[in-house]
Amino acid sequence: MSDFIIKGDICYTADKNTLITRPDSYVVCKDGLSVGVYDTIPERYATLPVHDRGGMLVMPGMADLHIHAPQYAYRGLGMDMELLDWLNAYAFPEEAKYADMSYADRAYTIFAEAVKKSATTRLAVFGTLHREATVLLMDKLEATGVVSYVGKVNMDRNSPDDLREESAAASAEDTERFILETRDKYKNTYPIITPRFIPSCSDELMKSLGELSKKYDARVQSHLSENPSEVEWVRELCPLAENYGAAYDGFGMFGSQGKTIMAHCVYSDDREIALMKNRGVYIAHCPASNMNVASGVAPVRKYLDMDMRIGLGSDVAGGHSESVFTAMVDALQSSRLYWRLVDSSLKPLSVTEVFYMATKGGGSFFGKVGSFEEGYEFDAVVIDDSLLPHPQPLSLSERLERAIYLGGDIKALRAKYCRGREVFSSES
Amino acid sequence: MSDFIIKGDICYTADKNTLITRPDSYVVCKDGLSVGVYDTIPERYATLPVHDRGGMLVMPGMADLHIHAPQYAYRGLGMDMELLDWLNAYAFPEEAKYADMSYADRAYTIFAEAVKKSATTRLAVFGTLHREATVLLMDKLEATGVVSYVGKVNMDRNSPDDLREESAAASAEDTERFILETRDKYKNTYPIITPRFIPSCSDELMKSLGELSKKYDARVQSHLSENPSEVEWVRELCPLAENYGAAYDGFGMFGSQGKTIMAHCVYSDDREIALMKNRGVYIAHCPASNMNVASGVAPVRKYLDMDMRIGLGSDVAGGHSESVFTAMVDALQSSRLYWRLVDSSLKPLSVTEVFYMATKGGGSFFGKVGSFEEGYEFDAVVIDDSLLPHPQPLSLSERLERAIYLGGDIKALRAKYCRGREVFSSES
Repeated sequence: MSDFIIKGDICYTADKNTLITRPDSYVVCKDGLSVGVYDTIPERYATLPVHDRGGMLVMPGMADLHIHAPQYAYRGLGMDMELLDWLNAYAFPEEAKYADMSYADRAYTIFAEAVKKSATTRLAVFGTLHREATVLLMDKLEATGVVSYVGKVNMDRNSPDDLREESAAASAEDTERFILETRDKYKNTYPIITPRFIPSCSDELMKSLGELSKKYDARVQSHLSENPSEVEWVRELCPLAENYGAAYDGFGMFGSQGKTIMAHCVYSDDREIALMKNRGVYIAHCPASNMNVASGVAPVRKYLDMDMRIGLGSDVAGGHSESVFTAMVDALQSSRLYWRLVDSSLKPLSVTEVFYMATKGGGSFFGKVGSFEEGYEFDAVVIDDSLLPHPQPLSLSERLERAIYLGGDIKALRAKYCRGREVFSSES
Repeated sequence: MSDFIIKGDICYTADKNTLITRPDSYVVCKDGLSVGVYDTIPERYATLPVHDRGGMLVMPGMADLHIHAPQYAYRGLGMDMELLDWLNAYAFPEEAKYADMSYADRAYTIFAEAVKKSATTRLAVFGTLHREATVLLMDKLEATGVVSYVGKVNMDRNSPDDLREESAAASAEDTERFILETRDKYKNTYPIITPRFIPSCSDELMKSLGELSKKYDARVQSHLSENPSEVEWVRELCPLAENYGAAYDGFGMFGSQGKTIMAHCVYSDDREIALMKNRGVYIAHCPASNMNVASGVAPVRKYLDMDMRIGLGSDVAGGHSESVFTAMVDALQSSRLYWRLVDSSLKPLSVTEVFYMATKGGGSFFGKVGSFEEGYEFDAVVIDDSLLPHPQPLSLSERLERAIYLGGDIKALRAKYCRGREVFSSES
């Protein structure tokens, strides 16, 4: 690992309300970590090579807390129904195809290439229930240089014949094998326990997964309170649980202080929210998906005010784009509609808040990630916003805001660094 | 004007419910008009040159019924307030700068370049109140080859000192001069009467503009019922008008069967809607803007069901992007939130409906525009969606849907034709 310095117009957050902008400055990477941002290169780093990105935006890499790799194939298709119908019509038939390793290879090659070229450096990824295809996905993600948690999905009920595991025992056994096979295989890719959601997993399976999570100190990701019919269904399936979150909690898979991600949380009631807060659950806010499949809008302002753990998720393919920049814009827009249409006591989100969620908020799931403060793992993206011309002078924070709104990651991404290594360059 | 044929995968709408997809087909352009789409080249056109876009999407050019050219400079900035505050904080100070012709030249050069490279072939454009800068804008738009109506804005009250005309008479006089100066100057660019909105224009001015509209058979564009505070303000300003639309109508500037565009119509009540229907007003639906400045969501389903005239508007810079593709996605998403959060009797929009609004719906303001049916003016865009890889076979309608959602106009626009002339090519 070599140390280096990036020169550029540096933006990052200290906390959800504090955007730090350092025009024409230097961020130093040593042993894969940031040692801070400087106006001039300190004497002790004078011999390090400088990657000159003068005039370009340099910001932390994006964290995507929720994305379905197999659904990438049909992103931007068929969003004319609600969640449960949508799963049956689109998601399940597509996911069933990943029993075929040659299809999986073709599809995951496309997915990994997209991840590589995106501004994302950290991801929490759903595969399918197929262990083999999911390991292939992990091989491909490892090759991109980004850091990811990847889950073989569990489904042993309420699923089509070609996308349902034989039994709770078989599903749990396969999951243990998956964990053992992958936990030490990669430098940047880790297994994560991934029950699809309560309706797809029997109590017996959930119990076993809870035990596996404990046995291997493994992280967990799933879905929570996304859609009213889903919430109602869980109420029927788990009559003893106080709420949907409590059902996960009862199986020992809810939080463990920062080890669980729950996607959506659109319809969480006060007690579910209190439980999430208490257990340190990460909320993956997926605004595009929540609009596309007409789920609604999550009360993010409430979550931020309560200092809950929260980041953004692209939720491909409920979301149509893998871009976390798009997720930031969608989060801003949908928070404004929530304020206007639902609850005017919940103030719309600010640009600083969504930028925080996209970087440090979601990044914290992965450790000290998502900032350039001293000791943070060095993830960075370089964006050439000169492609977005303007006639007037703009401050650095204005340039950042424009780059977010105008999709600065699409054409203008010049380089990406993860854990101190350059993993993508548009020149290469 | 030379005749030609485009070969490709052709998509267009016959009406709001009918998407026509013609894979591997030929659309023939003769004398600037479409003569139809064919499976094979008809004998009588056998000698025409063929522009081979095999494997690419070929669709009508997009119509943008509402865009503010001077606001392009600050697109993607400062969307943290509602309409009236936003106008004072951002729009008015920026627009005041266009008194300076060198600033206008710099800014409008950037705007025209963006229009040229977009998938838009028809636009209804707001300038500023400055006649000279607006004529410069028209010069630049004419050079892009697209067809546009462009308005010198009228403002004689409730505006800052540096963005307010001296008097109603001076404003009207300048507008007449603007019409006379530009109405025969261009091939593809036309003047349109553009009172900013009722709050910015005195009764005396509105009366004069109504007379000018009649005298010159000139079209009209303005804003209507965008934001609750604005609607309330108009009620105070025009106590005698039954509603906001009736105020325009009283001055003879509401409809004339297809000659007026009103942007937004988020808060139009039943009587205002009935008046719009009766007068043949075009509604410019601007979903991004309505989300960005927290206006709300227009009841587009209702307008479509009533067969009202309706198209899409980017509304830069209330909207952050000039892409009508983005407007289509925003229209879909916000219609789903409207259904979920406001009125579940108003079914979300379909892809065919938003594609219709983006092409034939908005295009009809400009004549027979927005389709490849026989006799339609030949506007087309060519999109290379092979840049959006997929592992599975996709139908042509699925490819169109994906291209819309995934911003197919951003990187993948290969060529644009307007009135039978190629006006942009990514190779040129």
